[in-house]
Amino acid sequence: MKPLGVAVAGLGRIGVVHTEILSYRVEGARLVAVTDVVEKLARTTGEKFKVKYYTDYDKLLSDPEVEAVFVATPTYLHHDMIVKAFEAGKHVFTEKPITVTVEEAVNVVRKAEKHGLKLMVGYMRRFDDAYMEAMKRIREGSIGKPVAFLNIARDPGAPPGWAQDPKLSGGIFLDMLSHDFDMARYLIGSEVKRLHVMGSAVLYDEIKAKGDLDLVNISFEFENGVYGVLHGSRKSVFGYDLRTEVLGTDGTIYVGNSVDPNLALGTKSGVLFRGVQWFWSRFYEAYVREDQAFVKAVLEDKTPPITGLDGLRVVEIAEACWQSLREGKPVSVTRSI
Amino acid sequence: MKPLGVAVAGLGRIGVVHTEILSYRVEGARLVAVTDVVEKLARTTGEKFKVKYYTDYDKLLSDPEVEAVFVATPTYLHHDMIVKAFEAGKHVFTEKPITVTVEEAVNVVRKAEKHGLKLMVGYMRRFDDAYMEAMKRIREGSIGKPVAFLNIARDPGAPPGWAQDPKLSGGIFLDMLSHDFDMARYLIGSEVKRLHVMGSAVLYDEIKAKGDLDLVNISFEFENGVYGVLHGSRKSVFGYDLRTEVLGTDGTIYVGNSVDPNLALGTKSGVLFRGVQWFWSRFYEAYVREDQAFVKAVLEDKTPPITGLDGLRVVEIAEACWQSLREGKPVSVTRSI
Amino acid sequence: MKPLGVAVAGLGRIGVVHTEILSYRVEGARLVAVTDVVEKLARTTGEKFKVKYYTDYDKLLSDPEVEAVFVATPTYLHHDMIVKAFEAGKHVFTEKPITVTVEEAVNVVRKAEKHGLKLMVGYMRRFDDAYMEAMKRIREGSIGKPVAFLNIARDPGAPPGWAQDPKLSGGIFLDMLSHDFDMARYLIGSEVKRLHVMGSAVLYDEIKAKGDLDLVNISFEFENGVYGVLHGSRKSVFGYDLRTEVLGTDGTIYVGNSVDPNLALGTKSGVLFRGVQWFWSRFYEAYVREDQAFVKAVLEDKTPPITGLDGLRVVEIAEACWQSLREGKPVSVTRSI
Amino acid sequence: MKPLGVAVAGLGRIGVVHTEILSYRVEGARLVAVTDVVEKLARTTGEKFKVKYYTDYDKLLSDPEVEAVFVATPTYLHHDMIVKAFEAGKHVFTEKPITVTVEEAVNVVRKAEKHGLKLMVGYMRRFDDAYMEAMKRIREGSIGKPVAFLNIARDPGAPPGWAQDPKLSGGIFLDMLSHDFDMARYLIGSEVKRLHVMGSAVLYDEIKAKGDLDLVNISFEFENGVYGVLHGSRKSVFGYDLRTEVLGTDGTIYVGNSVDPNLALGTKSGVLFRGVQWFWSRFYEAYVREDQAFVKAVLEDKTPPITGLDGLRVVEIAEACWQSLREGKPVSVTRSI
Repeated sequence: MKPLGVAVAGLGRIGVVHTEILSYRVEGARLVAVTDVVEKLARTTGEKFKVKYYTDYDKLLSDPEVEAVFVATPTYLHHDMIVKAFEAGKHVFTEKPITVTVEEAVNVVRKAEKHGLKLMVGYMRRFDDAYMEAMKRIREGSIGKPVAFLNIARDPGAPPGWAQDPKLSGGIFLDMLSHDFDMARYLIGSEVKRLHVMGSAVLYDEIKAKGDLDLVNISFEFENGVYGVLHGSRKSVFGYDLRTEVLGTDGTIYVGNSVDPNLALGTKSGVLFRGVQWFWSRFYEAYVREDQAFVKAVLEDKTPPITGLDGLRVVEIAEACWQSLREGKPVSVTRSI
Repeated sequence: MKPLGVAVAGLGRIGVVHTEILSYRVEGARLVAVTDVVEKLARTTGEKFKVKYYTDYDKLLSDPEVEAVFVATPTYLHHDMIVKAFEAGKHVFTEKPITVTVEEAVNVVRKAEKHGLKLMVGYMRRFDDAYMEAMKRIREGSIGKPVAFLNIARDPGAPPGWAQDPKLSGGIFLDMLSHDFDMARYLIGSEVKRLHVMGSAVLYDEIKAKGDLDLVNISFEFENGVYGVLHGSRKSVFGYDLRTEVLGTDGTIYVGNSVDPNLALGTKSGVLFRGVQWFWSRFYEAYVREDQAFVKAVLEDKTPPITGLDGLRVVEIAEACWQSLREGKPVSVTRSI
Repeated sequence: MKPLGVAVAGLGRIGVVHTEILSYRVEGARLVAVTDVVEKLARTTGEKFKVKYYTDYDKLLSDPEVEAVFVATPTYLHHDMIVKAFEAGKHVFTEKPITVTVEEAVNVVRKAEKHGLKLMVGYMRRFDDAYMEAMKRIREGSIGKPVAFLNIARDPGAPPGWAQDPKLSGGIFLDMLSHDFDMARYLIGSEVKRLHVMGSAVLYDEIKAKGDLDLVNISFEFENGVYGVLHGSRKSVFGYDLRTEVLGTDGTIYVGNSVDPNLALGTKSGVLFRGVQWFWSRFYEAYVREDQAFVKAVLEDKTPPITGLDGLRVVEIAEACWQSLREGKPVSVTRSI
Repeated sequence: MKPLGVAVAGLGRIGVVHTEILSYRVEGARLVAVTDVVEKLARTTGEKFKVKYYTDYDKLLSDPEVEAVFVATPTYLHHDMIVKAFEAGKHVFTEKPITVTVEEAVNVVRKAEKHGLKLMVGYMRRFDDAYMEAMKRIREGSIGKPVAFLNIARDPGAPPGWAQDPKLSGGIFLDMLSHDFDMARYLIGSEVKRLHVMGSAVLYDEIKAKGDLDLVNISFEFENGVYGVLHGSRKSVFGYDLRTEVLGTDGTIYVGNSVDPNLALGTKSGVLFRGVQWFWSRFYEAYVREDQAFVKAVLEDKTPPITGLDGLRVVEIAEACWQSLREGKPVSVTRSI
């Protein structure tokens, strides 16, 4: 089968990960080009991976060898870039979250339908082998009927500057915690119906200044009656602390861990373990599998495993979180489509 | 110094623990008598520990050798028994929770003051060496400024029959989770100001029938600005699953664990650990220390480390939880004293 | 049934543990007296537990209420005290190891037989619930056919003064590691046939000065073809580090752990766990069960679960260890009975 | 700087790993060609990585673009292939172990010197971040003076057919455990002086039939007085079980773990963790770093971090292991150079 010509737009840390993966780990994909507005970044990346490079996204879109675009730019650029790609007849894989607002997300989803093109959103945790195994066990009934979902997510540090501005990134609920809501929807197999937020900005002055939060607790209820709770923090000084639990009538599934068990130092103080390195290494193979899944879906003309609607749902949840915070009470999550 | 004459009232599982501890582990205490309305229980316990036994609580109270009473009966009996003990001039250690209602708790606290007698409430976790060490580390500043409190509490099974009736036990918020709220107040050093509850009865039909819950998520805010979240379940099929975390600006304290690491079986299925045994064994030494602390406080005429007010505060919180559940929104916690 | 009158001889740390346990935790036992050559120790212990006390062991033995003696004195006193107890018609529970030399152990075993009295040796780990469960799983075939035994034993610190002299204690192989060899024999169900020792005294000058070792590696072979390895150290600065593994054709059993998982502190340095407290707390319930098992065996006139022969076997092994060390090569373990 | 032209010889599982790494992860390297005697393997790999492919090793060696060869063929082919490469003027990175016999290893080391070419042996664990951190901590004095080295190595299953024949692979001591001896030498910074082996073939009939062992315990002594013990097994049914410990006067370093902590399933049976996946995933990044280190050493004309002498030392140890087994006693390790 003729390989799919792919390009990566946006060569920040996550764009480079996709570039690397697409250049050698995805059967059926042929990396054709990369693009970034920063000329030096575009050029060095293009040279390193021996592909074309552009600084002008429109030129990339007019390259007939490019059949699908991986959008890895800051969130506030997603909507326009995705829409342009569809108009140029390209399939789109976009990094999470799909867009900043519900309105934009709805538009993106509708454009994909209109043009009959594939759209996938990069919630890579769904492709992590621990989460996949958890999903399998839940589906097999190993824990009986799920009754509660619990997620603790503590990032090692604050996000890059632009992502501290909720107008550009959607804020903590979208930029960071939409991963966790996506996983909640995925593992429980139901939509979030109602939620209540408590939280504040106590860890970073710059986050507070931009009007975002850095510490939140969210209680929520799924349509199928399962209850969830999500605790998120933008700080964990010793490393990435991400843990997910699903409690069922007959058991509990635990995913994730606070420490790397591979090294310990016992001294008079006690036994010291290392923290877990951030998502780069923790989820690298998940990124590989998600890119493979997208390329496969395009080549076989099938629905990608994480759709535009999946992307929209978590934007709706994030907007409900902001509303709950403003109103100081639980709110219903509104569906736009 | 002349030892303090103590008696235990109520010889269920927890009353027997106190009887055993008071008979040999508490310097300064002399176990004088036990009482239970079930004659056989009173007699066999009295004989085993070589002390007097009564089936009539009033007779116990009129025994001049008894200087302090350990109340270990079902919660709905606490108020009257504690008040009677005070009227008979006895100091009181009561098992948690102090009473079923705020009104009762207020009365008990006032009666203790009026009679100038000691009153302590048995939140034994404060005497567990892991929790004590956590407290010490937090006070020393090891985690910087605390910003969030998180607690996961899953009991291995439903409580005894009477405790499934919220009118008799105060329900899940008081009977089970007041332990966790007491620890929250203790570790954070601030009062719970506002809270929001989501939850339901999905695990046990008998609990649902009595109007109690068996699965809850509670978000709350302390007066000092710290945010908390508490997840509670009446079921954990493999054992007691109790974990507490305090996140600070410079670190995190973790207390508790889901598994007993002392035995593992590796087979083709993976590596299987045992669950943690319930509070009997997990907290036995904490029960010893709390009984010692009460006896010491009485003998030295000092305020016990867990006061009637501490007991009252968590009843106020539990009532606020019920209110939030009824109203479907966050509520403020009202202080009665 | 009339309870068994018991007495404890030797009121050091382990003697007090037995005194405490026998005074309230052993159904069927009645603590009658305690003895120690240090008058103050004998008196305060007797008063605390409300029993007779002696400073003269012979007087204790002539007390007709004493039917069984728990010998908890330093090892070099065991032989004479056990023999005297038999001659006075008392059953004997002795702390490990049974005696310093094989010759003494043989004599003790023969005397027990001659007098028709019970003799049990205190390898309490056999009554630890993790080791018991391990034994059960092995017997049930959970790991298939055992092929290897591995034991890591690191004490937190050097033993008391007298125990540093191998002429008084038998040295590291007997004083410390006979626990591990007893467990090896127990879990594998076969005798140690041949062994080879490497080791030295590098941790404590006082141990080196007395001619004992503080760091050893022992390879050995059981009669049934299983291979074993035992690593022992008299030092582990953060706590007790005891781990046992049995590898089978279909799985592995792990017992023990290096850390207490109930408390962790995550800071910039990593995540710090506490070490495990020494055998007092780790094995307290095992001591209770072993005392119960001895009393039960006497009352029911049955063979105790750990016999004088069991005690002898590990003395034979310890002597073989010293021989291997002297000769610098593997040696066979000689059986005396 | 002009990149180094590299080629991979032998396209089994480990050869493909090097091919993949050299094609995109090593700055300064340019993958030029691959070779394997199996034409299909050579062709598909060459096509996939867009490089030349050969079935004839001599042709590869006469390709002037090839400046360094990565030898990843079965051990018994190493000697001749390495020598040929040197004679053709190519630098050599060889997979471990360097050769089957000490005689061959000596010859290879001498040939490298004679031709003035680089030679590195692939003990990749030295580049694993946990082992590297352990090394750093030991060198910094975190555990005081090292006194004991302990290693438990259990492979999930038997090696490929040819490696079961000790004449072709060197047997368990060289094929499997030379990794562990290399790590011992590395972490302790001293040579193994004397060792004693016990072991047998009890797990696999085919291994027994070929005269190899599948279960061994090795005690040893380093020249600097540190004692070591190494336990190896060719079977661990739930996954790779590799753990290394260095005990020092002031602490203990632990590397490795029996389980993957990222997924646990709690049910009535207990809490089930996954085993650790084999070395592919556990050590992938270590393979990357070792390839980078070799290429860097060649480009900068420096001594590679793992030399031919390092490779020789563990062959000497493996031969001593066989001798100890034959003679049934401890033996000294003889140095050939």
